[in-house]
Amino acid sequence: MELHEAIKKITPPDAEFEQKAARRLDEQARPDGSLGMLEDNARRLAGIAKTLDVHLAHKVIVTCAGDHGVVAEGVSLFPQEVTAQMVYSFVDGGASINVLARHAGAEVRAADLGVSHDFEKELQIFHKKIDKGTGNIRREPAMTRDQAVLAVEAGISMVEELAAGQRVDMLGTGDMGIGNTTPSAAMLAAFSGMDPSKLAGRGTGLDDAALVHKIRVIKDALALHQPDPNDPVDVLAKVGGFEIGGLAGLVIGASACGIPVVCDGLIATAGALIACELAPAAKSYLFTSHNSVEAGHRFMIDRLGIAPLLDLKLRLGEGTGAALAMEILDAATRVLAEIRTFEEVRIRNARQE
Amino acid sequence: MELHEAIKKITPPDAEFEQKAARRLDEQARPDGSLGMLEDNARRLAGIAKTLDVHLAHKVIVTCAGDHGVVAEGVSLFPQEVTAQMVYSFVDGGASINVLARHAGAEVRAADLGVSHDFEKELQIFHKKIDKGTGNIRREPAMTRDQAVLAVEAGISMVEELAAGQRVDMLGTGDMGIGNTTPSAAMLAAFSGMDPSKLAGRGTGLDDAALVHKIRVIKDALALHQPDPNDPVDVLAKVGGFEIGGLAGLVIGASACGIPVVCDGLIATAGALIACELAPAAKSYLFTSHNSVEAGHRFMIDRLGIAPLLDLKLRLGEGTGAALAMEILDAATRVLAEIRTFEEVRIRNARQE
Repeated sequence: MELHEAIKKITPPDAEFEQKAARRLDEQARPDGSLGMLEDNARRLAGIAKTLDVHLAHKVIVTCAGDHGVVAEGVSLFPQEVTAQMVYSFVDGGASINVLARHAGAEVRAADLGVSHDFEKELQIFHKKIDKGTGNIRREPAMTRDQAVLAVEAGISMVEELAAGQRVDMLGTGDMGIGNTTPSAAMLAAFSGMDPSKLAGRGTGLDDAALVHKIRVIKDALALHQPDPNDPVDVLAKVGGFEIGGLAGLVIGASACGIPVVCDGLIATAGALIACELAPAAKSYLFTSHNSVEAGHRFMIDRLGIAPLLDLKLRLGEGTGAALAMEILDAATRVLAEIRTFEEVRIRNARQE
Repeated sequence: MELHEAIKKITPPDAEFEQKAARRLDEQARPDGSLGMLEDNARRLAGIAKTLDVHLAHKVIVTCAGDHGVVAEGVSLFPQEVTAQMVYSFVDGGASINVLARHAGAEVRAADLGVSHDFEKELQIFHKKIDKGTGNIRREPAMTRDQAVLAVEAGISMVEELAAGQRVDMLGTGDMGIGNTTPSAAMLAAFSGMDPSKLAGRGTGLDDAALVHKIRVIKDALALHQPDPNDPVDVLAKVGGFEIGGLAGLVIGASACGIPVVCDGLIATAGALIACELAPAAKSYLFTSHNSVEAGHRFMIDRLGIAPLLDLKLRLGEGTGAALAMEILDAATRVLAEIRTFEEVRIRNARQE
């Protein structure tokens, strides 16, 4: 599905089921509003699924991987090869996301959007490589405008392929890409006009001097490219990343297919932000999982206006926060469906007497 | 087990397993500390269970119920009868805690510590009634000093009975008692010396005028009884509640039996605070589940020094927050046990080549 087609396909969730859900939550035998964020989320999920008995039985987390030319500037502690190694690890099942997805009852699917490595064709991943790593954004654009659109469309196509082959009740998005907190912070600075020093974080563990350097690199990239904050594809092309485009496409694709989608931390939220700038209607399908300790994350959450469920000081990525949030969202569906209303309690008691 | 005996029985968790856990977490193939609070909690659970492969297979939430004479002052929106009705609901399985416990794979056990109702002997609850409701703390002490000790010992005995009959890998504590945010706030004011107006919250949904009245009631009770902040049993007896004593006993009992225990929101945390004032060693076994929106809760958490896992704007009680936190703690055990170390990845790769 082409990008503009997918955007057009997004329809609002069912307002009637949202209202029915709100009514049922209010009528349950407990103080009004006492289950806080579980209630808001349950109501939203009911509107999306068009039922008060939502079952998130088939959950899939897609972890999008890509490499970044900007690592040449020394913005990450880990070597670029780790991106490809981690993709193998996701397939092998022993990485952090595999462990947390298993706990949440979710399947993990890795995706190559732009890793600087040739994966074997037989490897069980989404093969969606746009190019082998982006350009070094301090010297050149990350990618062309066409590539940016292709990356987003690759994300959309993954949702279509998943939904064609199996039932998908909820999608999670996660990232893997050595160096990718740098483009994420650059994109956020472009959108918000905020100073990169307030948005850049320590990524996998930079010290003070390295953080100052990372901020310098982001400032140089923004000064060089002058990305247009009113043109999300321009921002993605000039200072983004292939996996970030893919992550945006996952949110748009899920929204177009009517599937609720929960994004992980900094990078996945950057992708979700691109998605919602391109397609504001996608916000109705989007859930945010956690407050990352990465500095810029809070600002993205505020811009999206969707409150995260967790605050566990995570800064791993891969979709780990999304996996944990899926468990809470799953619990929220049970709250709506299973807690008895005062009326149900009354009828039940009358029958037993 | 008598209170002083139980306190003496609490031994520190295994420091060696805590260190082994910390080492394994650091050696896992991911950035140091990137799983935030999951890591701290996994390490603590390893020390308690004396293994790196902790399984929280058998989880039990004990919901302690009691009534409060202070409801005569109009501090709650709900009539006192609701306490007993909710106990029947817990047994029947359709209350909020049943739904969330089921989702977390935990069993719910209701306990009568002081409900103003005669339950049938056959009813499947812990029958630990100290008295039928406390005294109205604005006019008289909540209970005698002997009753306060009995309430705590009732909590200890429930853990003993549970642990004798089945394996218990983790205990959760929850409360039910119309009017019980008033004694909880009073206890906290007594311990902290803080002004009740900063500690009292809206409970099940008081309006502004009712909140002002509730604060007045708490101030009157404190002025009348002058509870001694250095004597937790005095505080419990003068301005506490039977179920709050039971909740304290659950924490002490679990600690004495070497079982990790996670407390719910305001009331259960008040119980946990009493427990840790009586037996500071119990802190090593205690986990806090969530930041309640009730005003005084944050101060108790700070006093305990144990960071809650969740912040979902819950204010229900019953153990609902504890149930949700159990899912996160369960995930933490999987993080420690299952995410591969760099060395394990290397060995595995060498074998596959």
